[in-house]
Amino acid sequence: MHFMQSLQQAWADHDSLVCVGLDPEPAKFPAHFKGRADAVFEFCRDIVDATADLVCTYKPQIAHFAALRAEDALERLIAHIHEKHPGVPVILDAKRGDIGSTAQHYVSEAFDRFKADAVTLNPYMGRDSAQPFLDRADKGVILLCRTSNPGGADFQALDCGGEPLYVRVAETIARNWNTHGNCALVTGATWPEELGKVRSVVGDVPLLVPGIGAQGGDVEAVLKHGRTANGTGLMISSSRAILYAGNGEDFAQAARKAAIELRDAINACR
Amino acid sequence: MHFMQSLQQAWADHDSLVCVGLDPEPAKFPAHFKGRADAVFEFCRDIVDATADLVCTYKPQIAHFAALRAEDALERLIAHIHEKHPGVPVILDAKRGDIGSTAQHYVSEAFDRFKADAVTLNPYMGRDSAQPFLDRADKGVILLCRTSNPGGADFQALDCGGEPLYVRVAETIARNWNTHGNCALVTGATWPEELGKVRSVVGDVPLLVPGIGAQGGDVEAVLKHGRTANGTGLMISSSRAILYAGNGEDFAQAARKAAIELRDAINACR
Repeated sequence: MHFMQSLQQAWADHDSLVCVGLDPEPAKFPAHFKGRADAVFEFCRDIVDATADLVCTYKPQIAHFAALRAEDALERLIAHIHEKHPGVPVILDAKRGDIGSTAQHYVSEAFDRFKADAVTLNPYMGRDSAQPFLDRADKGVILLCRTSNPGGADFQALDCGGEPLYVRVAETIARNWNTHGNCALVTGATWPEELGKVRSVVGDVPLLVPGIGAQGGDVEAVLKHGRTANGTGLMISSSRAILYAGNGEDFAQAARKAAIELRDAINACR
Repeated sequence: MHFMQSLQQAWADHDSLVCVGLDPEPAKFPAHFKGRADAVFEFCRDIVDATADLVCTYKPQIAHFAALRAEDALERLIAHIHEKHPGVPVILDAKRGDIGSTAQHYVSEAFDRFKADAVTLNPYMGRDSAQPFLDRADKGVILLCRTSNPGGADFQALDCGGEPLYVRVAETIARNWNTHGNCALVTGATWPEELGKVRSVVGDVPLLVPGIGAQGGDVEAVLKHGRTANGTGLMISSSRAILYAGNGEDFAQAARKAAIELRDAINACR
């Protein structure tokens, strides 16, 4: 199924805008994972199995696996989600971006090797760097727009002919790059008014919103500025606050409880 | 040794501004590699061993390895260069970029796992996304500025208060991010006058210049606009034109010949 259809189905079936970020950090795992050879896979799998009915997407962040030489665990984790929870699409959070001939190899990495349903990309190198991804019409292409980190303003907020760069990026992608209807944008929860500005220029294009929780973003403001007319349009991402909600034997149930709380806090504002 | 010192030493010792891009594509390998289990490593190793006295840096492009599940070959390739050709620093061409906590994992990937001497990064997310890399003062941090691809102009050339975005990026990095003196910039050979504009605002900061050869950039124009007062300051990158110069048993000698021709063409303009 196309990513955009899967996403809409998951929004409806699970009544949830929550995206759980899978950012494994072995030092934060519960003690009983210590010494287990396949701890990275097993920890993430247990989180997934405890939360799959509560989320609209999973978002494994590839650097967390690459730094540990754990690409194999990432492949198996995504295969596990597809097999056990086929209603939940997987976003590979990789923020890639390179010239066309190299972009094709990144396409292979994300979609053929890891079998992700969508990938995050950096738009700085322009359209031809994204084109091989955009051409995979069944896959989601989620481009950085206004990011949630403090340095997000360094270049994204520069005035480009009366509009900040991130608005020019949003307009260009929504108007010119989205011919297959498979684009989405990353807009951080820490800048809700700027998120609203993006929403106002991109119509119903989905927004992936990191920055809730650990980074301090406000759920109510994100919903107010970012939701579409039918109360969806958002993938609100939380990683650490869910993954590491508990650190005992019951860590997966603690993660489930945190995911329910976030889902309900979001739904109260929809 | 610090990347910047190694680079200057290699410029001098090898009298060369050539950077060979290591972009393995098994479909283009000579026939005798067919069916060899370790073909990716062996092909790249043979290219390296035939050209190491002619270059200032090697630049393996990580997607070419990742798409093939060949991270292990990349680790061994970089270890081989360090062991056999310690005078030639290695740039991991990865174009990463993410928030600070995730950037730390990309730092581990590039420097602790792959043991690269430098890495390419995308500056769109701003300073805190680069800071964990900048803090590794012995490593090179090579940030995208004006890229060689057709879409490079889409956002990089937007007017930001009287200057194009890529000039604002160059100024910001050279003035504010380069406190450890370990920054360099990517500026494509296909836009030599814009390369000159970057040179005029960054002083002696080294420029990594892709786009010679297959992409049509002009060596003479690149040298005219990009060299520093002492005739260095550039890492002029060529990948396909060297790697695939021959496709017989003598492919490594053909690569050597192509590297000599490029080195000499560059040196004739220094």
